Amino acid sequence: MDAQKIGAHSILLAHPPLLAYTGVVAGPKEGAGPLGADFDVIYEDIQLEEKSFERAERRMMEEACYIALGKGALKTEDMDFFLAGDLLNQITVSGFSALAMQVPFIGLYGACSSFCESLSLGSMLLSGGYGEKVLIATSSHNCCAERQFRYPTEYGFQRPGSAQWTTTGSAAAVLTAGEGEGLRVTTVTIGSVVDLGISDTLNLGAAMAPAAASAIDFHFTELQREPAYYDLILTGDLGQVGMQLMLELTDRRGYALKERYNDCGVMLYYPHQQVEAGGSGCACSAIVVLGHILGLINSGKLNRILVVATGAMHSPTTSYQGENIPAIAYAVSLEK
Amino acid sequence: MDAQKIGAHSILLAHPPLLAYTGVVAGPKEGAGPLGADFDVIYEDIQLEEKSFERAERRMMEEACYIALGKGALKTEDMDFFLAGDLLNQITVSGFSALAMQVPFIGLYGACSSFCESLSLGSMLLSGGYGEKVLIATSSHNCCAERQFRYPTEYGFQRPGSAQWTTTGSAAAVLTAGEGEGLRVTTVTIGSVVDLGISDTLNLGAAMAPAAASAIDFHFTELQREPAYYDLILTGDLGQVGMQLMLELTDRRGYALKERYNDCGVMLYYPHQQVEAGGSGCACSAIVVLGHILGLINSGKLNRILVVATGAMHSPTTSYQGENIPAIAYAVSLEK
Repeated sequence: MDAQKIGAHSILLAHPPLLAYTGVVAGPKEGAGPLGADFDVIYEDIQLEEKSFERAERRMMEEACYIALGKGALKTEDMDFFLAGDLLNQITVSGFSALAMQVPFIGLYGACSSFCESLSLGSMLLSGGYGEKVLIATSSHNCCAERQFRYPTEYGFQRPGSAQWTTTGSAAAVLTAGEGEGLRVTTVTIGSVVDLGISDTLNLGAAMAPAAASAIDFHFTELQREPAYYDLILTGDLGQVGMQLMLELTDRRGYALKERYNDCGVMLYYPHQQVEAGGSGCACSAIVVLGHILGLINSGKLNRILVVATGAMHSPTTSYQGENIPAIAYAVSLEK
Repeated sequence: MDAQKIGAHSILLAHPPLLAYTGVVAGPKEGAGPLGADFDVIYEDIQLEEKSFERAERRMMEEACYIALGKGALKTEDMDFFLAGDLLNQITVSGFSALAMQVPFIGLYGACSSFCESLSLGSMLLSGGYGEKVLIATSSHNCCAERQFRYPTEYGFQRPGSAQWTTTGSAAAVLTAGEGEGLRVTTVTIGSVVDLGISDTLNLGAAMAPAAASAIDFHFTELQREPAYYDLILTGDLGQVGMQLMLELTDRRGYALKERYNDCGVMLYYPHQQVEAGGSGCACSAIVVLGHILGLINSGKLNRILVVATGAMHSPTTSYQGENIPAIAYAVSLEK
């Protein structure tokens, strides 16, 4: 048994798994954005011609899984575990997709941090010797999430500049143990839940920024790395407002991130697409990283990146009851 | 690195963690039941004098955690990870409790299987070398769950005989790596999601029974064990209806469980307490096992048990949309 935990929150994986195969699907708006060319499938109809938005989201997750498996000529029975989470109450997208997959299922909830939560745990299971191949997935759908957390989109309520646009899409990945060339998950930093007093559900970027800053601080301190170690440091879906706050918070702690920092929620849409502060939702970081960023790594433009996905751990009920919005972040290093 | 996975679903833990300290709190109805004497705290007021039921549930989980830590004279900073899940939308009980704990947090969703899901993953992390001490917790609250999944309890709607009573309570445990006498988590079997066509949300026991039978089958086949290996095989919260179906399904597969089988939901209440088919909810298996069963093990009446907690992975939305109720089960062996 190799000791793998470094400090209170970080893990240097003894046997870094390979991020071997990916499947990325996206909605029409995401397809029309600057990264549209990097996704495997772009749906023309946001409802995928299904009878409900929820069914559409499930089909997206299942298709992302099958695309990832297909690229490796793998079957569901080759997978040791399926780790997935999504935004819907009782993570029904993941649960019903697990029914389709018939792979031993570990259901997670980390809100918009689900991509890095599943990537972290999946990598830990493989590095710990619990199997050879793990399937991870996450998803979000604008029309499902908006009506569950705020208002049905048909209502057309006015959104402030700090609001973010829930991404429609899903991404899946097959992680594998053992030898081989490629991109590996090398470290994981698991955050604690933080609350800096934000209660505005139309400003989730600000609520989540402190969690990202905290996980980044733990990551660099515990693993004794400098920001310059990475070619790119990427937050999940802080948007324009949260991104600025994140930079302020990390700047105060002495980290100069600015030149090598970006946010998936800011990268995913054009300014004219009217997403206000940027994208959000579980799919946001998942489709940007597994779609766009992996392409930059494969073409040699990037070698080492740190992805920090954040999640707002509130619910409409806790918000109606006047509670603040606590948030969490998981930071994961991907290295070639 | 020790190979630990046996078959598609099961894990023989190379370094079985100790189930070292527990904290068990329960509501007034659970306290008045046959196992009331086995809980650390019984609340007189189901709302714990908090301003909402949701706040009451959070206080229960936090108190269960502090009781478990206190028994080991441990502090939150001694914990490597906090793994928790609950029934409420966006697992806010767990998320807000994680804010109080300030321990690296892994949020899970497995509905009523949360106890065994967190016990499984926590044990796998420790056995895999990821730390020394893990805190796990789960909870449910009758008034929170009923109004979220069915009707507010104040409405007083009539319940059929197959309905179950969501348990009010919470249980936490500290798992530790390394030497020492005591009860250890020795194997884990992670189920796939199953659906045998049940869609009645007032008959969750029947929806979950096939998941329990499936996990039990995987457990015995993959680990090459016989039911007689265990002094007791315990399902989480199938209730009277699900329990009978579970016995039928396992009987058909050739397992004679009857003499050594019981269900936590059936054990937790007296017949006169009007819980119809029995208890349910994440807390049901957690408080019965960590409260009552651990006492029987410590006093030498039991030595080896298999706990199979099941979860119904539906939501009110999927049920309104006419979907069936898929279910999952996690089976965990506890051996002295």
